[in-house]
This record gives sequence, structure tokens and C-alpha cells, in this order.
Amino acid sequence: MTTDTRDDTGPLAGTLVVDLTRVLAGPYCTMLLADLGARVVKIERPDGGDDARRIGPFVQDRSAYFLSLNRGKQSLALDLQRPADRALFERLLAHADVLVENFRPGAMQRLGYGWEALHARFPRLVLAAISGFGQTGPLATRPAYDLVVQAMGGIMSITGQPGGPPTRVGTSIGDIAAGLFGALGIVSALHHRDRTGEATFVDVAMLDCQVAILENAIARLAASGEIPRPLGTRHPSITPFEAYPTADGHLVVAAGNDALFQRLVAILELPALGADPRFASNEARCQHADALRELLSQRLRERPTAAWSERLEAAGVPCGPIQDVAQVLAHPQVRARNMVVGVDDPALAAPFPVAGNPIKSPAFADPATRRPAPELDGDRARILAWLEEEEMR
Amino acid sequence: MTTDTRDDTGPLAGTLVVDLTRVLAGPYCTMLLADLGARVVKIERPDGGDDARRIGPFVQDRSAYFLSLNRGKQSLALDLQRPADRALFERLLAHADVLVENFRPGAMQRLGYGWEALHARFPRLVLAAISGFGQTGPLATRPAYDLVVQAMGGIMSITGQPGGPPTRVGTSIGDIAAGLFGALGIVSALHHRDRTGEATFVDVAMLDCQVAILENAIARLAASGEIPRPLGTRHPSITPFEAYPTADGHLVVAAGNDALFQRLVAILELPALGADPRFASNEARCQHADALRELLSQRLRERPTAAWSERLEAAGVPCGPIQDVAQVLAHPQVRARNMVVGVDDPALAAPFPVAGNPIKSPAFADPATRRPAPELDGDRARILAWLEEEEMR
Repeated sequence: MTTDTRDDTGPLAGTLVVDLTRVLAGPYCTMLLADLGARVVKIERPDGGDDARRIGPFVQDRSAYFLSLNRGKQSLALDLQRPADRALFERLLAHADVLVENFRPGAMQRLGYGWEALHARFPRLVLAAISGFGQTGPLATRPAYDLVVQAMGGIMSITGQPGGPPTRVGTSIGDIAAGLFGALGIVSALHHRDRTGEATFVDVAMLDCQVAILENAIARLAASGEIPRPLGTRHPSITPFEAYPTADGHLVVAAGNDALFQRLVAILELPALGADPRFASNEARCQHADALRELLSQRLRERPTAAWSERLEAAGVPCGPIQDVAQVLAHPQVRARNMVVGVDDPALAAPFPVAGNPIKSPAFADPATRRPAPELDGDRARILAWLEEEEMR
Repeated sequence: MTTDTRDDTGPLAGTLVVDLTRVLAGPYCTMLLADLGARVVKIERPDGGDDARRIGPFVQDRSAYFLSLNRGKQSLALDLQRPADRALFERLLAHADVLVENFRPGAMQRLGYGWEALHARFPRLVLAAISGFGQTGPLATRPAYDLVVQAMGGIMSITGQPGGPPTRVGTSIGDIAAGLFGALGIVSALHHRDRTGEATFVDVAMLDCQVAILENAIARLAASGEIPRPLGTRHPSITPFEAYPTADGHLVVAAGNDALFQRLVAILELPALGADPRFASNEARCQHADALRELLSQRLRERPTAAWSERLEAAGVPCGPIQDVAQVLAHPQVRARNMVVGVDDPALAAPFPVAGNPIKSPAFADPATRRPAPELDGDRARILAWLEEEEMR
């Protein structure tokens, strides 16, 4: 569809994704597909396009929020109420592998593009719907935001300080989990279609995905009857296994078994702790977790994070600094893994940094720069030319 | 491979996954593949198997932790140092589509099962490696735990209360994100193999996946130069958009625009707020967020969560209760979506509840119960019989 193929290598090369999604969960899903090599044609409303174009933060006059989620996609503005635009949309669908939408359930049916109708006309097309609560159930038609599904899905009830105020996960895990499960559902449906010829409908709900990532908390409740609560940074049943203050920040230490605990107190030069019966086993340490935390913190506060982590690592005690986002982006391992890539936006002075693709494979290129996010309707001519060529075949 | 096919429908039906993974990230990945219909043969060490079998919580003498991650898989105990066991492992690989491992980088090479060696012998086999830091880079051989990658990957630096102590996401998002990206990479590699015949190596690092879910925080830093910090439950640039105390719990309210704000204050019967110049626009509300929070909280504290949410929902103001895990599992929408399924373990009196599969599709069964997690080496006879049958073909 384009002569610039830098981003177009990957396991999904040759896959055409038509993308009706807006804001975060859907665009994150199709960003993952684009990172895997799919061609994503973003269909936007002619009057302003994706709302995310107007969500900050901004660089110059461009939404960095939009740019980071939509790099490498193409844009075509269509009003799906207008017959001419519907005709063009349908010409595209005839060549597409996947259609993704994140409208409220019912909206596609009102447009005449419900699953039954689409499947009858485009039998090769996989349809994926990402919604707040799913296509079925008593809350199906309710709108949802990340904040609402984080609240209703339980993750906020187990995140935070013990007895403290409610705490949202600092990233939009409600949207992001749905985008990830959506992408997994879509690629699985492509594999099924490859093998059987049958295209299927994929229905992913943000709330469901929050339940799917609760995991251990469900098992804890079911096994004990006790409702899981926030634990700060602490592990529910291993001690010491949490964050401690240092002279200049925080260090997490994961010294779960007796041997690691002995190595930890040796490095900290706290031999009395190693001989203390209160700390002689993991069970004992869990019972006296508060006392142990205080004693370890006193000592760890005396030196900076880097000094401690160097010594602990050398002794094989798992640990790590709590890094802020700037430290993460500058970290040698993150850099070596090409996990910060630059979006080459011609309107910006320098490539804009975004997260790279964490699915690494030596078989495919993993370029350090990515194509920009599209201007609204910026790829119309290119898409039309490609479509005409395909239709001539 | 089994006559019980209840769990075996799905887009990955017919796919054989040989699974060397232990504990959480890898088993979560292969659980997702099993939920999508793949057959997962879990290879365990003969001396006790997966460490997760000894991680609590326990029901009767069984690890609920192990059970919830390994439901529906089969188990074969092999010592990959022993020639006879290696021969059986290789017979399995000859029929497998995917091999997944989460050893430390280098371990597979020491076993003689590095990618080059495997690919030469089993050209159809996709190999996926899930590790803490990845197969490359200066930290490649370091061990990692969820706590360590949550700390080093930045998510802990943006989760918590403003100015408060560090806060871990209450679920093991370090492991879970890696399991999800691993599954997406694997299914994408299967699609690529379907189309091209080429099997590829997939290298997923827990740390990389933490960067990949930071999203908005990277854009905020890059656009403003300001390091993102924890915000409690608050949205960085929309007000009111956070959690408020009620008479019996908490309610999140997402009333981002002026119209929703006016509806909110009407329901709360606080007309003065609707006319207050401090709260006349989103920008003004963000500037006076603390004052607004206090005023809204005073009023919301007067009634229980359910009473407020009923009225706000009726008025179309997005909101939701902060539900604990027990409330989540009992919620009518979660139940209607079959997001709590029962594991039928013969050793337990009742089906044990685990999270369901959030990738819904009317084309495939979504049973309300799942097969149990395997006993160590519990499927040896069945696997051998199947293998002999396959080898006769």
C-alpha cells in the first residue's frame, strides 16, 4: 500500500486492518498490529477525526498522545452515514483481513455493519469489537472509561497502601489490557481463518480483561475467603520482598528464601538479623514483617540506591531501583533492546520518543524510527490508488 | 490427544504447545494459548515439577496458584539432562508447533536446545523465550521478579498517592504483561508460518513489556520535560475524574466535560458549584482540583455508593463503584460474560473459581468449567499413546 516499507516487515506483513477505533483501547490494539507488520488504515470522522487528536500532552500543535498511539497508520476520513463514503468503506473491506471497532455495542448494527451483515458480504473479514462491558450482559450498552473499569474490575481494590486511599494503576491498564487481549484475539482469528477458511467475530470487553489480569487475587480469595487488600509494595506471603527507602530513592529487594536472606543481611552488615529467631524462616519473617522492614530500612537509608544495588547484585540478591520514567527511557538495557524508538514527524524538530515493540524476533527488522501518525485523511490518494490497483487484478 | 475436548475448541485448536515454563509469566502465556484451544503439554522436572506447585494459597493440599495458571494443561515429567528423556522430548518437538521457555538466557543453549540447533532440526517449530530482561543487552543474564521489573520499568514511579510511599500494582503486571505479549508474539509467529512456511524465534522480556505499557507517561515526559509522578486516582488533565469517598465505600466519577460536570452537580444538588467561576471550565477545574474534590467529597459522603451511582448513571454521568475482588466475582455483568469459570478438580469438593477467557467469540464454546491442572507427570501414558499414533501415520 506504500513504497515505504520500513515498518511493514513483521509476522503480520500483508495483513490489511481497517480501523474504526478512537482514543485508547482500540488504537493501542491496532498499534500492536501495526508494530507486528500489519497495514492499518484508520477511518476517521471528517469533522476533526479521532478525539485523541485533541488530547494532550501536545508538542508544538500536535497531540503527543495521538502520535504515540497512531504512528505508522494511514488515515482516511469517511462519514459512514454518507452513501459515497459507505461505498468506499465497503470497497476497502472487500480487501481487508480485519475490521476493528470500539463503538458502544449497537452502533455498528445501526450503521448496517453488524457482524451478521458484514460476515454475509465479506466472508474473509475478521471483525473485532472492543467495548467497555462487552456485546452481551446487562451493562452491555453502558459507556466505560479506564477509570471506571479499573474501579469496577477490582484492580484498584488491591493497589495502594494498606488502609490508605484508593489508588489507580498509573497507566491506563483498563484500556491497555483490552488492547492486548483484542490483538491476541484478532491474530488468533487470523490463524483460525488461515487453517479453516472461516472468519470469526471477536468480542473483547475492558471489564472482562480486568478480571483476567486479577489472577492471584482470585485464587487468594477463593482459597482463604479473605478479601485481598492493598499491600503497598509487599508480597502477600514472602518476606523480605518489597521496596525500601535509600539515601537517594528506593530499592526493591526480593530475598524470598533463607539463603538469600542470609546473603542480604551479610551485605548489609547486619549479622544480628541473621541470627534473630524472629527472622529465622520465611514464616517467621512474614509474622514480624513490620519490625524487619524498619530494621532493613534504617540501614538501607544510609547509602544511595546504586551503591546498594551494586553490592546486592554481585551477591546474587535480586533487587532493583525504582526508576522514574526518565530513568527508564535512558536505561542501557532498555536502549539496547530498542524499547524507545523515534517517530519521524516532519513537523517536529527531532524524532519523538515512543515505546518500541516488545515482541522481538531476529527474523524481522526492528527499526529505531517509525513513520509518523497520519494527518486526518492524509492517505486518501494513496489508499485510492492502491485500491484501484487491487481491483484491477 | 485426549477424548475430553471441552476445552479444545477455539482458534488455536489443533496447535500443540510444548511448555517448559515455570511459575507465572510463562504459565500465564501458555494458559492464554490453552484458553484459545491449543493443547499445552507442560514439561516438568521429575523432582517436584513447577515451583508454583509449592506456592500458596492452598486449597486442601493443592496450590490454588498453580491450579489457576495450569488448568487444562497436560503434564509430562522429563529430566532434560537424561538421554532417554531428551529423546522423548525431541519426539514431542517433532510434532509440536510451539516451544515456550522462561529459563534465564543461556540455559537452553547449555541444554543443546538453542534456537539455531532447534530450528535446524525442527524447521516448523516456533520457539518463544520469555525472560526478565531479554536475550540481548547488558542485563540479559540477570534474574528478574515481577517486583523488580515493576520497579525498574517505571510503573511503580507513577502508581500511588502524590508524595506517598512507592506502590506496586496489586496484580503481577510485570509477569502478566510479558505473558500477554508472549502469547501475541507466538500466535503472530504461527500466522507467519502458515503464510510463509518459516518458523521464527520470539524473544519477550518482562522489562520491555513494562515500557510498552507506560504509553501516555512517555508522551507526557517527552512533551513537557516533566517527570510523571503518582496521582492517586486522578487523571493528569481532566477534572473531575477520580475516586470519591461515599457513606460506605468509594465511587469513581468521570465527568470530563462541562456538560457532564453540570449534570453531576445537578444530581448532587450543588447548584453553587455549577455557577462557581473556579469550576467553569476543565482548565479552571484542574487548577482548583483540590477545592473541588473537597466539596464533592463532602456531599458524596452523605449517601452510599449504590444510591449515587444509580442516580448518576440514570443521568448519563460515567461512574462506577470501587469493587473488591469478591464483589467483582459476584457482579452480574462479570457472571453474564462467563468471566468466572470453575476448575473441576476431582480432589476438591466444588469447582474452584478462576478467571475466564476474555476473548469471546460466538464461533467457539466458552464452557463454564475447565479441566483441572495436571498432576505431575499425570499425562505420560496419554501423551505416549498419542505420540505413537502420530508416528505411525
